Amino acid sequence: MKLTLKVSGKFFDEENSENLSLLRDVIIDLVNNGHRVAVVTGGGGTARRYISMGRKLNLNESHLDILGILVSRLNAQLLLFSLDNIAYPKVPESIEDFNERWASGKVVITGGFQPGQSTAGVAALVSEIINADYLVLATNVNGVYTKDPQKFVDAKLLPKLTVSELKTILEGSQSVNAGKYELLDPLAIKIVERSKIKVLVINFKDLNKLPNILKGNEILGSVVVPE
Amino acid sequence: MKLTLKVSGKFFDEENSENLSLLRDVIIDLVNNGHRVAVVTGGGGTARRYISMGRKLNLNESHLDILGILVSRLNAQLLLFSLDNIAYPKVPESIEDFNERWASGKVVITGGFQPGQSTAGVAALVSEIINADYLVLATNVNGVYTKDPQKFVDAKLLPKLTVSELKTILEGSQSVNAGKYELLDPLAIKIVERSKIKVLVINFKDLNKLPNILKGNEILGSVVVPE
Amino acid sequence: MKLTLKVSGKFFDEENSENLSLLRDVIIDLVNNGHRVAVVTGGGGTARRYISMGRKLNLNESHLDILGILVSRLNAQLLLFSLDNIAYPKVPESIEDFNERWASGKVVITGGFQPGQSTAGVAALVSEIINADYLVLATNVNGVYTKDPQKFVDAKLLPKLTVSELKTILEGSQSVNAGKYELLDPLAIKIVERSKIKVLVINFKDLNKLPNILKGNEILGSVVVPE
Amino acid sequence: MKLTLKVSGKFFDEENSENLSLLRDVIIDLVNNGHRVAVVTGGGGTARRYISMGRKLNLNESHLDILGILVSRLNAQLLLFSLDNIAYPKVPESIEDFNERWASGKVVITGGFQPGQSTAGVAALVSEIINADYLVLATNVNGVYTKDPQKFVDAKLLPKLTVSELKTILEGSQSVNAGKYELLDPLAIKIVERSKIKVLVINFKDLNKLPNILKGNEILGSVVVPE
Amino acid sequence: MKLTLKVSGKFFDEENSENLSLLRDVIIDLVNNGHRVAVVTGGGGTARRYISMGRKLNLNESHLDILGILVSRLNAQLLLFSLDNIAYPKVPESIEDFNERWASGKVVITGGFQPGQSTAGVAALVSEIINADYLVLATNVNGVYTKDPQKFVDAKLLPKLTVSELKTILEGSQSVNAGKYELLDPLAIKIVERSKIKVLVINFKDLNKLPNILKGNEILGSVVVPE
Amino acid sequence: MKLTLKVSGKFFDEENSENLSLLRDVIIDLVNNGHRVAVVTGGGGTARRYISMGRKLNLNESHLDILGILVSRLNAQLLLFSLDNIAYPKVPESIEDFNERWASGKVVITGGFQPGQSTAGVAALVSEIINADYLVLATNVNGVYTKDPQKFVDAKLLPKLTVSELKTILEGSQSVNAGKYELLDPLAIKIVERSKIKVLVINFKDLNKLPNILKGNEILGSVVVPE
Repeated sequence: MKLTLKVSGKFFDEENSENLSLLRDVIIDLVNNGHRVAVVTGGGGTARRYISMGRKLNLNESHLDILGILVSRLNAQLLLFSLDNIAYPKVPESIEDFNERWASGKVVITGGFQPGQSTAGVAALVSEIINADYLVLATNVNGVYTKDPQKFVDAKLLPKLTVSELKTILEGSQSVNAGKYELLDPLAIKIVERSKIKVLVINFKDLNKLPNILKGNEILGSVVVPE
Repeated sequence: MKLTLKVSGKFFDEENSENLSLLRDVIIDLVNNGHRVAVVTGGGGTARRYISMGRKLNLNESHLDILGILVSRLNAQLLLFSLDNIAYPKVPESIEDFNERWASGKVVITGGFQPGQSTAGVAALVSEIINADYLVLATNVNGVYTKDPQKFVDAKLLPKLTVSELKTILEGSQSVNAGKYELLDPLAIKIVERSKIKVLVINFKDLNKLPNILKGNEILGSVVVPE
Repeated sequence: MKLTLKVSGKFFDEENSENLSLLRDVIIDLVNNGHRVAVVTGGGGTARRYISMGRKLNLNESHLDILGILVSRLNAQLLLFSLDNIAYPKVPESIEDFNERWASGKVVITGGFQPGQSTAGVAALVSEIINADYLVLATNVNGVYTKDPQKFVDAKLLPKLTVSELKTILEGSQSVNAGKYELLDPLAIKIVERSKIKVLVINFKDLNKLPNILKGNEILGSVVVPE
Repeated sequence: MKLTLKVSGKFFDEENSENLSLLRDVIIDLVNNGHRVAVVTGGGGTARRYISMGRKLNLNESHLDILGILVSRLNAQLLLFSLDNIAYPKVPESIEDFNERWASGKVVITGGFQPGQSTAGVAALVSEIINADYLVLATNVNGVYTKDPQKFVDAKLLPKLTVSELKTILEGSQSVNAGKYELLDPLAIKIVERSKIKVLVINFKDLNKLPNILKGNEILGSVVVPE
Repeated sequence: MKLTLKVSGKFFDEENSENLSLLRDVIIDLVNNGHRVAVVTGGGGTARRYISMGRKLNLNESHLDILGILVSRLNAQLLLFSLDNIAYPKVPESIEDFNERWASGKVVITGGFQPGQSTAGVAALVSEIINADYLVLATNVNGVYTKDPQKFVDAKLLPKLTVSELKTILEGSQSVNAGKYELLDPLAIKIVERSKIKVLVINFKDLNKLPNILKGNEILGSVVVPE
Repeated sequence: MKLTLKVSGKFFDEENSENLSLLRDVIIDLVNNGHRVAVVTGGGGTARRYISMGRKLNLNESHLDILGILVSRLNAQLLLFSLDNIAYPKVPESIEDFNERWASGKVVITGGFQPGQSTAGVAALVSEIINADYLVLATNVNGVYTKDPQKFVDAKLLPKLTVSELKTILEGSQSVNAGKYELLDPLAIKIVERSKIKVLVINFKDLNKLPNILKGNEILGSVVVPE
């Protein structure tokens, strides 16, 4: 299978970085199971620190976003160095770069591409160009819930939902608390819809079960299916 | 002043290409009036032809978009060759490339950057990174109307409106006839809002009045102002 | 075997583009038969349109040629996207670029390199650097004739001829009707001669028989042999 | 004059980043005084954090150094965005890149180039290739002392010394407390010696006096002179 | 005026290299007289040595030509380093590269571009793309003669001739002694003809009179004029 | 095994170039024995000639070093063309470039990277980034001796020594006759020490025994072992 794995930048914050060896091992495992893997990394706390320093220097929004992108690429580089033999040794800086590196047959790890774009948007673009079987969003919740599970005790995990249903949920949650529950931004949703990409939302802690889930031996998280 | 000029790809279709010398002369005029100018070109009919050929070959959506982007860059190259001394002689392929070429002090002409993105989105990104005074959308109508002027006789041109008002109008029009009246896509609106970029919508035929409009000597089209 | 396949730009004109799937299938077939394949594409009608627009804008000859080269690269990109897994995903822009991509083991598809140079010249350069067994010219005639077959009923197809003989024929035809029967320009002839490259001229419609021809199971077209 | 300004990475740590606006203002001031300025930035605390994460993932020393270099380039990018009009908008990644950007006439800001090399080594290479009048080392001490001023009350600041004298002092201090008082590493010293580059060591806090010092109106720090 | 200066590689052979300071001074002089200058350098004896070593290793003709091109770029680099402030600090590797560097306003110095192409061909391409007023060929004879002046005492220098006349002379000489009197190869002639480029053939030793010749104060060498 | 082979530039001088086919055959042999090979080439006599010409033109030390680096890359290109199928077809220009090409699985051949750095320094950097099992220094002596074997009859070859012992010997010899016996410069020693790289010093003439030596079937030269 061809997979895009979107990993939050917070796993590259020093205090969470013990998870990086888990992530590395999962990628090795996926490759050993015959999958082709693309990884998209976020910027995390380091990105926020640089953006905050940039803001004090009155940089414009594009410049601030580029600082965040540079940090996400730094995170991608850290991860790829740990995968020495199986990852392409350079972080692509655009989708055209990505596409060229993907032809190497190796795992390709990328950070952000452009201002005004979330990591999820990048992951959707990557999924589309490689015709990915799954876009996997590794998050800190167990999947997509009917409501924010941290606020409502009656929130229910949805093992399967459509993109339209996801949109309805995201719109609801955003009006309450912007930025918190944002799995897919408008670009990502547009790409996922037009190319009918299947999205799997799972807890980062369950990443090691991903090979099993892909074999169909285990059901975890939520699958967002094209209509 | 710093200006981004967004030009529809249709002016590069052979049947409309007599407008190209007008466009060239406007740019020269703007430069002679002391303005710095960025230009973003669309793909037009040639892009549609290549996308249609690609679709017959079963290319995916990303690949089709990239064909359209390549045509928009071809259009940019045609235009810049006609501006030999005053334009940067290479078409940038990303916003980072763009930013580097912009430092040359020359007119920089760019096509598309990435799949899933309209020319207006590119123009908004460019406007943000250069802190443009105006993003100028050269269209085939005279500005923003309360309704689609080709359908409703009581449609009124709005000389000045806010981004929110524009959004309301665009949402209304899109529900009626998608793609037809689309001035700014969601990415473009997001960028325009967060960086408070002023947008001027004018008829392509009035482009030669742009130096005068910028001097405040003439009022034409619609200005979309930040809130 | 190592082959360079030179394809006229006219197969990328929308009205002939149904031939593109034939071309794609031939390339796949050649690869499946164990051949390594380089492809050089021309610019066709789109190139002519852009050159005509450029001429109206008074571009110089180099600039016009570059527009044609950009279109030939666009054609190369369209073709390579249709060969997703087996073609190198980027169009080289010089012979040095080409050489680097060729090391990937994939089919490499290229357009033009430089002003003042025909597609056949590029194909000869490519054939030389990869030590090609054959440079295959896919044309709209069945091979090399003693005279222009469209004018003379007694024109005879030559199944085998030397480069000198080809030169004599080309010089004759050019004096009659320049540009029409031009298979190899002076650069191409120089390269073909100095590196003793075998040239196979066949009808585009017979391309699907190429694997058979290369096996020696079928004789078609004309072979130009080194002296 | 042509100056290379070497700035420690610690000024890019969030807790010290209020110094960045001072640094930006000094550079603007130097440019306004007619000087040409190259800046070399270190990696600081962020580099150390990434190197520490990399070490936990068993990266080799080259990979760790490259992570540090990437952070130093991130710092360079932050600084150059704050100098929008006067700095070259891209961080060079090698001395050849640097040399090309330097021809733009703008301030060029660079991070590290290569594993196994200190920021001071990079600054010496940069100084040599531009024939700098001064390599300015902005540190947290007031200049070069006869002994470590934080340990010995009788340490004396040397307003002028030769490279040989500096070497003797550095060798002495290194044997006591490696890494603490290291102004110039062996590569930097080799370059400074062979090209007779004058080195000015001053306190970061006195950077705003640099235009005055260069005019000869004020004497501060230590000057290391070629023999 | 805009000039392309073609310099034989032999001036970069160690035994003739005292001419390099003359060449440097001429370029500085031309720039000081307000001209824009492009320079194209050949490979000379070093190129021949590398080609001979390559031949012993059985390299193909393309590879041998690339070795010669690399040496011509090395010569270009040596020359540009000697022109530090006024030359673009990097040798372009294609005509597209060249065109981008030319926009810098500096002297651009280039070696070869492609196998199968002479330095004169490169110089013609460069002249065309910059719309050069003159392509200056610095040779070891005083201009174009009716016959080879080293063989025939009655050979006469032609102060002015047409491209057709030049072609007739070159064809005559080539049949006698190939390679010796070859000023322009077929590509160069094709470019010179189609773009009506004026060619000035002068003795290298008279290069210092070039500023005067261009002012019309002195007549030397031969001018080949478009028809 | 992974090997870095450092080859002196003098084998690329025309008078010694008969050794190049030996070198090529050794590399093919090593690859056929399952080893991965990186090669670093020096500049030799051609580099010295260009540096000498540059010095007459008053180039600075950085510029002179870059000329030497360009020649070393030319040598690398000559060698890789002779290894057509098994070597990566482009010479990397930095350690980051090198690392990207190394992922191709091919032999990667590189010249110099940066001014102020010896070929041995480059070879050490390359060895570190690929985690080489051996850095092989092919020299014109049989290994490391207790004293300079060309001066002292009682000099003894050391089959095994530590880096510290090597440093002591090098320091001794350098004080006597700088540059003559210099196997490893300070950068190379620093890298070799920190990454515990094993160094094998052998006579160039014994290179064909390298496959055997690596199998443990033969003992030749000196091995410098990490402490």
